[in-house]
Amino acid sequence: MIRRAAIRIELPDWLGPLVADWPHNLPDEAAAMGLAIALARENVRRGTGGPFGALAIESAGGRLVAAGVNLVLASHCSLAHAELVALGLAQQALGRPNLGEILSGGCTLVTSAEPCAMCLGAIPWAGVGRLVCGARDADIRAAGFDEGDKSPDWELAYRRRGIAVVRDCLRDQALGVLAEYRRSGGVIYGPSAAARAPVP
Amino acid sequence: MIRRAAIRIELPDWLGPLVADWPHNLPDEAAAMGLAIALARENVRRGTGGPFGALAIESAGGRLVAAGVNLVLASHCSLAHAELVALGLAQQALGRPNLGEILSGGCTLVTSAEPCAMCLGAIPWAGVGRLVCGARDADIRAAGFDEGDKSPDWELAYRRRGIAVVRDCLRDQALGVLAEYRRSGGVIYGPSAAARAPVP
Repeated sequence: MIRRAAIRIELPDWLGPLVADWPHNLPDEAAAMGLAIALARENVRRGTGGPFGALAIESAGGRLVAAGVNLVLASHCSLAHAELVALGLAQQALGRPNLGEILSGGCTLVTSAEPCAMCLGAIPWAGVGRLVCGARDADIRAAGFDEGDKSPDWELAYRRRGIAVVRDCLRDQALGVLAEYRRSGGVIYGPSAAARAPVP
Repeated sequence: MIRRAAIRIELPDWLGPLVADWPHNLPDEAAAMGLAIALARENVRRGTGGPFGALAIESAGGRLVAAGVNLVLASHCSLAHAELVALGLAQQALGRPNLGEILSGGCTLVTSAEPCAMCLGAIPWAGVGRLVCGARDADIRAAGFDEGDKSPDWELAYRRRGIAVVRDCLRDQALGVLAEYRRSGGVIYGPSAAARAPVP
């Protein structure tokens, strides 16, 4: 009757060793973004998912709590966007659904590309206090991805909730990964395009 | 360095036997909503989570593909809303992130309460073609829950994507579960209220 009793979303084997080569306390947000983009790039090169990487970080001191990459196709699960993978892993590692209540200075989410509508809705629930984005929404749409029905006022709504937003952090490098994914013929998954390759 | 390599969200043990008492092909949407509400109620009574239940159903014929309940506190994961649990389980059971491409007549998501901002963003990514809701957004907010920053136009945006929305299906019964949760002193988790009990 119930054919499956658990959702499981697993990081690819290459991720742990890659992260281990970076400082565990990331000195600033550009360094953190550098790691998020390196994860996105490696995810493309290894063929393990879409061109997106994200980190959950302790805002005070920059301690890396969890890292995620896009695993939608590999995990057969549309929830497995890089941001949600990083947040879910951080929450389960710490045993708390609200990261803002347990991390010193709160939780910073660093993502190689501006979150889609699902991830924007999820970020407040995870207790994130600061969001740092690389590529812009328009960059992601130009690469062929659907970002969903985002309110044009989402940043204002975040501010009202006490969530700070930083944009364009290493945007050129983040754009480079999106371009590499297109060049490689990477699959654009999504609501109506699960097996459609992007137009070159 | 990476303290956890997988997210795992597991259904409570009581859920399988409860679902097995219902027909596997649900004869109509009211019957499906009856099961979603029964799951929400049992989740409250067993103390396994918030007052929400959801089903992923094959639109042609009403076959139940997966069931979910709210497991945010039990799984230490803010992603574990009933809707996302049902959709993620259905996707991994079928091995496909897009349910609309694999289920006959598409995928219907039946939820005891209107989805929050995160779940509204997630539903198109899962390939859902029809959304059936019990309690209204205002009912959930009145019960003390934050529904997030939802666009007032979300239903129109869904229609443009080809997602039909049905409201107020067994709303009174769904409201009854929200009321029971409040009476039981159930925890209102969320961005700024992870351990705050609702005002009676």
